[in-house]
Amino acid sequence: MSQERTEVGSLGEFGLIEHLTKNIEFQNASSLLGVGDDAAVIDHYGKQTVLTNDLLIEGVHFDLMYTPLRHLGYKTVAVNVSDIYAMNATPTQILIGIAFSNRFSVEALDEFYEGVYAACARYGVDLIGGDTTSSQKGFIISCTAIGEVAPDQYVQRSGARKGDLLCVSGDLGAAYLGLLLMEREKKIYLENPQIQPDLEGEKYIVGRLLKPEARKDIVEFFATAGIRPTAMVDVSDGLSSEVLHLCKQSGVGAVLYEDKLPIHDDTRQAAFKFNSEATACALSGGEDYELLFTIPQDDYEKIGNMNDISVIGYITDAEAGAHIVTKGGNKHALTAQGWNAFGGHGS
Amino acid sequence: MSQERTEVGSLGEFGLIEHLTKNIEFQNASSLLGVGDDAAVIDHYGKQTVLTNDLLIEGVHFDLMYTPLRHLGYKTVAVNVSDIYAMNATPTQILIGIAFSNRFSVEALDEFYEGVYAACARYGVDLIGGDTTSSQKGFIISCTAIGEVAPDQYVQRSGARKGDLLCVSGDLGAAYLGLLLMEREKKIYLENPQIQPDLEGEKYIVGRLLKPEARKDIVEFFATAGIRPTAMVDVSDGLSSEVLHLCKQSGVGAVLYEDKLPIHDDTRQAAFKFNSEATACALSGGEDYELLFTIPQDDYEKIGNMNDISVIGYITDAEAGAHIVTKGGNKHALTAQGWNAFGGHGS
Repeated sequence: MSQERTEVGSLGEFGLIEHLTKNIEFQNASSLLGVGDDAAVIDHYGKQTVLTNDLLIEGVHFDLMYTPLRHLGYKTVAVNVSDIYAMNATPTQILIGIAFSNRFSVEALDEFYEGVYAACARYGVDLIGGDTTSSQKGFIISCTAIGEVAPDQYVQRSGARKGDLLCVSGDLGAAYLGLLLMEREKKIYLENPQIQPDLEGEKYIVGRLLKPEARKDIVEFFATAGIRPTAMVDVSDGLSSEVLHLCKQSGVGAVLYEDKLPIHDDTRQAAFKFNSEATACALSGGEDYELLFTIPQDDYEKIGNMNDISVIGYITDAEAGAHIVTKGGNKHALTAQGWNAFGGHGS
Repeated sequence: MSQERTEVGSLGEFGLIEHLTKNIEFQNASSLLGVGDDAAVIDHYGKQTVLTNDLLIEGVHFDLMYTPLRHLGYKTVAVNVSDIYAMNATPTQILIGIAFSNRFSVEALDEFYEGVYAACARYGVDLIGGDTTSSQKGFIISCTAIGEVAPDQYVQRSGARKGDLLCVSGDLGAAYLGLLLMEREKKIYLENPQIQPDLEGEKYIVGRLLKPEARKDIVEFFATAGIRPTAMVDVSDGLSSEVLHLCKQSGVGAVLYEDKLPIHDDTRQAAFKFNSEATACALSGGEDYELLFTIPQDDYEKIGNMNDISVIGYITDAEAGAHIVTKGGNKHALTAQGWNAFGGHGS
């Protein structure tokens, strides 16, 4: 990391934008005009355009005390393209606006954009627009991600049907435990700055928190395998909450099985250390950015050779509600906070 | 205005989004899927898609002490579609994200969205996406405006050519004087809350500040009259600054004439009261949201019957630089702050 500090004011707003965007090279033919005019121009040539936006506020969505700006830039792009993948679409462009107080130097902004560009390269998206402005306090990010999809091939949350299999990619709960860990270490550090953070063996959960990846590979696998999910959503608020959304919007119910929930060994160990239930972390932790989706039972064979997808349950009638069957065989109603969040769980 | 106060927490995040977006009716066939999924979907059916985003921060871009939330919602949409018009495109959709502290009630957010929806109706755009989140301090708005344009018919800032006429819509400088007035009244009020604001006769300049309109009519006029500007930009940072951008990006120079600058009578009177030069306000005031554009001389006849367009100068070689000729016949180099901002001007 450079020790230099260049004041933003020395470049001016337009100089800063030029500085931050001078190395952009478009990866998509659909990116016709980028940063530098009143607006950007794209052409998806007969495909449909998918758009999502997000507002990320320092102190609410991230803590710069333990979030390197490079990771924050990367994560900003990753979590937004995750929403594009959740539509079964391919991300192609992003627009990023940042507001920052004068505690941020040009070098700090460069680090943020290094992360942005690294994620752009990873996901094949072009930065085509930006806004830089000052804030009274802290760092504020707005991100609009844009993608394309063949006409009417996008997947909503509302298409799940009775009998469909409920599937999730990757594993769950790690980012939440990463957050607990970083908050604990922050507290220790604030009480005694001499003590160095103890992150030994916690690389996985910290990585899941600070540098999540969007599931580009899963959407590409769908295309190759000829799968079109009936419904899909990315897991940002916690599995329970997303299952409930999907059920509500599809007008269905669901049963999931505790023993089918994909949980990484490091997550289980961290949950044990934090005196938490790994299952509860998986259900209500959030920030996993995995894909939760439903497929017809007939497509079960097609996902057989993708070992990073778990079938965690199935879709029922709306009247049956949304439940989880515990390892002990008990059935509990799902709530947005996991299940029975105020009374512990039964197993 | 309602005196009720409903806490945002009583609705929850998803309840709030549902509440704020429940009356949306799409005006555009291109709006396929709106609020409520991971992302929105549009299809511009063979046209190109134009996108711009903006981040507006309380205390930096607006002061809620004299900005009604309804006006702020309207202005958010107006200033963003203004960027779409500045590309010679038609706005079709917007995405709006807001972050707010707990001092804002549901009723306050309703007022903001009333303004948003009023502007959406005025400009024919559909709200298709949103994000609502909390902030540590103040009200923060991110807006992404989307528009469409026939293939390759968008107008950049870079197409002005020597001999082109330099034109501007409407009149300039009023919003800046509106800002001076509101800041003065705020100061008086803070010193003595008994004193009521004195806005007598200042309706025009205050309106230009608090409820600017984007120049939909001008872009529609271009289409009817068969005009395609060679370059265009909207006047958000002040005429001087925009002329300099246009010259830089087009690789040209410009001459403008002080006596051709369109300035409203109320603006002149307000400038006099504030002991300011109306010309300086027009050149460097900003927030006018008028369109500055260039057309070939051959198109002069075509704008003849549009009395809300002023020809204020012409385009020269880059070597000649950018100048203004004063009423007294003196020639001054334009600067981003107007001209000779630190030394007064010559006439």
